Amino acid sequence: MSTSPDATSLIAALADEVPPDRFVTDPDIIDRYQHDEAEWAPYAGAVAVLRPRTAREVQALVRHCRRHGIPIVPRGAGTGLSGGANAVAGCVIVSLERMTAVKQIDRLERTAVVEPGVVNDDLRAQCATEGLWYPPDPASSPWSTIGGNVATNAGGICCVKYGVTRDYVLGVEVVTGTGELVRLGRQTAKGVAGYDLAGLMVGSEGTLGIITEITVKLRPLQEPHRTIAGYFDSLVDAGRAIRAVAEVGLTPSALELVDKRCLQAVDEWKHMGISAEANVVLLGRIDTPGTVGDDEADRMLQCFTDGGATWAAASTDQAEADALFAARRLAYPAMERLGPVLTEDVCVPKRHVPEMLSRIESIGQRHDVMIANLAHAGDGNLHPLLIAPADDDAARIRAQAAFDDIITAALELGGTVTGEHGVGLLKMPGLRQELSPAVIDMHRSVKAALDPDGILNPGKVF
Amino acid sequence: MSTSPDATSLIAALADEVPPDRFVTDPDIIDRYQHDEAEWAPYAGAVAVLRPRTAREVQALVRHCRRHGIPIVPRGAGTGLSGGANAVAGCVIVSLERMTAVKQIDRLERTAVVEPGVVNDDLRAQCATEGLWYPPDPASSPWSTIGGNVATNAGGICCVKYGVTRDYVLGVEVVTGTGELVRLGRQTAKGVAGYDLAGLMVGSEGTLGIITEITVKLRPLQEPHRTIAGYFDSLVDAGRAIRAVAEVGLTPSALELVDKRCLQAVDEWKHMGISAEANVVLLGRIDTPGTVGDDEADRMLQCFTDGGATWAAASTDQAEADALFAARRLAYPAMERLGPVLTEDVCVPKRHVPEMLSRIESIGQRHDVMIANLAHAGDGNLHPLLIAPADDDAARIRAQAAFDDIITAALELGGTVTGEHGVGLLKMPGLRQELSPAVIDMHRSVKAALDPDGILNPGKVF
Repeated sequence: MSTSPDATSLIAALADEVPPDRFVTDPDIIDRYQHDEAEWAPYAGAVAVLRPRTAREVQALVRHCRRHGIPIVPRGAGTGLSGGANAVAGCVIVSLERMTAVKQIDRLERTAVVEPGVVNDDLRAQCATEGLWYPPDPASSPWSTIGGNVATNAGGICCVKYGVTRDYVLGVEVVTGTGELVRLGRQTAKGVAGYDLAGLMVGSEGTLGIITEITVKLRPLQEPHRTIAGYFDSLVDAGRAIRAVAEVGLTPSALELVDKRCLQAVDEWKHMGISAEANVVLLGRIDTPGTVGDDEADRMLQCFTDGGATWAAASTDQAEADALFAARRLAYPAMERLGPVLTEDVCVPKRHVPEMLSRIESIGQRHDVMIANLAHAGDGNLHPLLIAPADDDAARIRAQAAFDDIITAALELGGTVTGEHGVGLLKMPGLRQELSPAVIDMHRSVKAALDPDGILNPGKVF
Repeated sequence: MSTSPDATSLIAALADEVPPDRFVTDPDIIDRYQHDEAEWAPYAGAVAVLRPRTAREVQALVRHCRRHGIPIVPRGAGTGLSGGANAVAGCVIVSLERMTAVKQIDRLERTAVVEPGVVNDDLRAQCATEGLWYPPDPASSPWSTIGGNVATNAGGICCVKYGVTRDYVLGVEVVTGTGELVRLGRQTAKGVAGYDLAGLMVGSEGTLGIITEITVKLRPLQEPHRTIAGYFDSLVDAGRAIRAVAEVGLTPSALELVDKRCLQAVDEWKHMGISAEANVVLLGRIDTPGTVGDDEADRMLQCFTDGGATWAAASTDQAEADALFAARRLAYPAMERLGPVLTEDVCVPKRHVPEMLSRIESIGQRHDVMIANLAHAGDGNLHPLLIAPADDDAARIRAQAAFDDIITAALELGGTVTGEHGVGLLKMPGLRQELSPAVIDMHRSVKAALDPDGILNPGKVF
């Protein structure tokens, strides 16, 4: 355990503004902060990790780094799947894990003010005690932080009806690349005073500013929901059912797809006994209250049946329904237990879900890559998981080729390379396919405007 | 009628790319395009008006103007209330009124693709035939255009439950200040590929780009609603009822306030006979389906009664309820018939609505200014209308002083100077009060990044 000379001089230079104990300099501990969960995304050695307690400490670091041209890589819990939080050589990592205050939950205004390190599930639990609901629910919600969710504009299961993180961010406090500590956005229900710079920060993956406080909008606690499950023989049958739900004009509060590979992985891990029944499972939810909701649940069931379900039913047993959704949430970590997983995040128009699922299947066969499928199917946001055995370079190269082909297919169908995970490192080539050179230039201009020295999370996104 | 030499050379220079008949050069006709509906906001002489048919024509103009340093002022229908569309000396006005195609309404994806000149009500009517709903409903909806709505991030009556224009914009096609024609945003339900540049355009009031196409998100047709009306003796009583609705956790689909001055103006114009009963009227709507909605309507009625209503009832007569809302929509044009109206657009936290209404009353008394009150009360977005007789300079100066005091009061209560009308010219001093110098600098940097020569709507917003 040795502290690098760079770290020593950094800590000394900031000693008046940042207590030295905020820094981690042990290389073994630094190593754990140097990457997120993206498979095969490069990262390099950081000089130190700062775990600030206040926005002023962040500001002091940014000002110092700006003067000395030191790159900064901010991060939340590191649950990202695109490499957006991966360290670059000589950088200081800013981990916001210790800024965990829920400063306010306001029942009347339906807002919460939180520090970036608050874990998503913790905020949701605290809101629930006030009869309120913070909807964005990425599968990482037990671990991921609101700051990271905002930086990546995280989605989740609820998005199909309730939208993504951006839809809940009213305001942010940010340290910009010029070292200014600013408040953007508003505290009121509406507001159009100037450009939507708060919105610009959402999803900017730490490249425009470091978020030190967030004001989110809340909703009343969600109504109880009905769960509709359907078993299908094939992905394409399930895709037809998904499209049918959109065609008949339903707005489910969740519509998830999990295939047998995922369910088997969950069963092997948690022994839930749910993988034997079907090749593909669709899980739908309806939270419209009253008889209108009952009718909608019936219609969703009909869509599943019409799509070719081998079995479909509305669950009357809440425990059973919860178990199915718990299995869905566990699918990603369960797959990771089996080896390196390259995670796609394409999103296509809903009408093309059957076609996209069919293309994913063909691409897997063509490249001889095992692909498990998991999807926020109701919004066309698909997460094919490409699995390659550890230490099998040929398999890794085949998986990467399949990854590229899936992105190309999604773009051909009018989709996007990333529905909710962010660009990070893994989707940078895809972004260049998706956006025109003029739009990439606009990104460069905006980046240069707010981070003129390019010190914030350099080399990411574009 | 004479064409200025500047206009002649402009038209000649663009003749290969823009048919000359797209230009208006008659000074009398130009004059009608030189300002919006903001009272006492300055404007100056434009050289010509371009009424383009295509994005390429807009692009050709921007490229020419960039080369020659000619300012451009884009506009929709000119129903703005902040002066955002007012001409500056020597500018070319771009009126998008002839780009009126609804290119697509997609039932399955719940999206529409429209040109900027489509009138809000026309889009809403076309969506309705497909069983779909475009919620943003500014009071100007019979005249204002989607392009103008997007440029100002327009709100309306539905926002209290369904959000503002920004919440419905998925993508835009824009000509930037560098003359690039770009597509920003997405066509899919979700997407985080790069910065939210589409969102940045929303509410930028023509200072960052000229919008030539918009993809909006739609909802299923709204459920039938119940209307709850309440009569109150005072603004503060009504304010208490408004706060109570938030306190008990209701989510009305509308909650509007109209005072007697507005109702009398409507009655004098339309003879609806609704102004005799009350000093202040609250109009609430609940669109939650079924018995849950019935229960919510009962609770709203209770809030009105508890707030001190002299009379309150849930309307069982749809025609009667529609008449009340029609009167609310007519209030602004009815007041304008009485003379110049300076329109506020402050938005305050909901808990401060009673206090803010009380301060507005005091400010009117202090400055001897007649103030009529109209409000999207459910989101704390208040539109006090300051009325000064025409050609009475002293009254105008008193009204402007009251206008400034109302802005200061709103900011003291944690509010914003503009909830939905935009900054334009009238709210520029207020914006400088609301935003820190560092945030104004960020606006300047972003503006310089996307419009480096400062030709797009110069002198507006900040």
